[in-house]
Amino acid sequence: MERKSFAEMHCSIAQCLEIVGEWWSMLIVRDALLGVCNFDQFQRRLGISRNILALRLSRLVEAGVMTKVLYSERPPRFEYRLTEKGRDLWPIVTAMRQWGDRYAAPGGPPLVLRHTECGRMSEPVFTCSNCGGKVDAEVMDALPGPGAVEPLVGRWQPA
Amino acid sequence: MERKSFAEMHCSIAQCLEIVGEWWSMLIVRDALLGVCNFDQFQRRLGISRNILALRLSRLVEAGVMTKVLYSERPPRFEYRLTEKGRDLWPIVTAMRQWGDRYAAPGGPPLVLRHTECGRMSEPVFTCSNCGGKVDAEVMDALPGPGAVEPLVGRWQPA
Repeated sequence: MERKSFAEMHCSIAQCLEIVGEWWSMLIVRDALLGVCNFDQFQRRLGISRNILALRLSRLVEAGVMTKVLYSERPPRFEYRLTEKGRDLWPIVTAMRQWGDRYAAPGGPPLVLRHTECGRMSEPVFTCSNCGGKVDAEVMDALPGPGAVEPLVGRWQPA
Repeated sequence: MERKSFAEMHCSIAQCLEIVGEWWSMLIVRDALLGVCNFDQFQRRLGISRNILALRLSRLVEAGVMTKVLYSERPPRFEYRLTEKGRDLWPIVTAMRQWGDRYAAPGGPPLVLRHTECGRMSEPVFTCSNCGGKVDAEVMDALPGPGAVEPLVGRWQPA
């Protein structure tokens, strides 16, 4: 089944899905965030065909999420690096990891984080940009923003 | 092209992708977080075929992300509600929305949030669970966790 394009949907989540495009892309970005930059290393770690990997990488380059950099002229060798737009996918990868750790990691988390600034083991926590309190779906009301074209649903109707 | 199963991959991100399964699923979860619970309303908002929507919803129910609840006996009527496991997808949806707002919302964000506890407009920010400082990919070192089965890559080799 072909995936429909989300490009025309007026929703930032759909736009994100449109550009990141496909599950393999998120695993490529995951590996790139861990320091993988070489085609063969991506291929070995992901275990996908070279054909599909090449397609996914070129789509990520087109979308501005990665760049393909010539790092040796003879022989010509390329590596793939995340752009700022690509590194900004880190919160999504992190939120996915936390959810997977909670619901699908019976042997414990495969990966943990240390915050280099405080030096302690750490998990990123979503907090309010104003009061700093911990936030989740329960304490956040959604309202139409400047780019809204249609009313929201449920209890959050526009005024 | 059929999507390969990620079930055997030893990675919480792949497990998350395996269960959430498909882009439509994230848009269903998005709408459910906004208060949509009724089949016809999902269908109208997403503009997908009833057939595909029914498949996606039943997969989300199987995965424990939603429950199907009989709310009227005559005539029999059902609604779909997020479980705790489903509501816990909110950080992923939120991180996707923030990325889309930054890179693909030229008219401004379609949706904004208000934190009900402090009463102010707010954006969730990832902060360190220890020191409370703002965190991103640059200040977090990845280390193998208790469930690790293979070394990490790049600068983050296991000791």
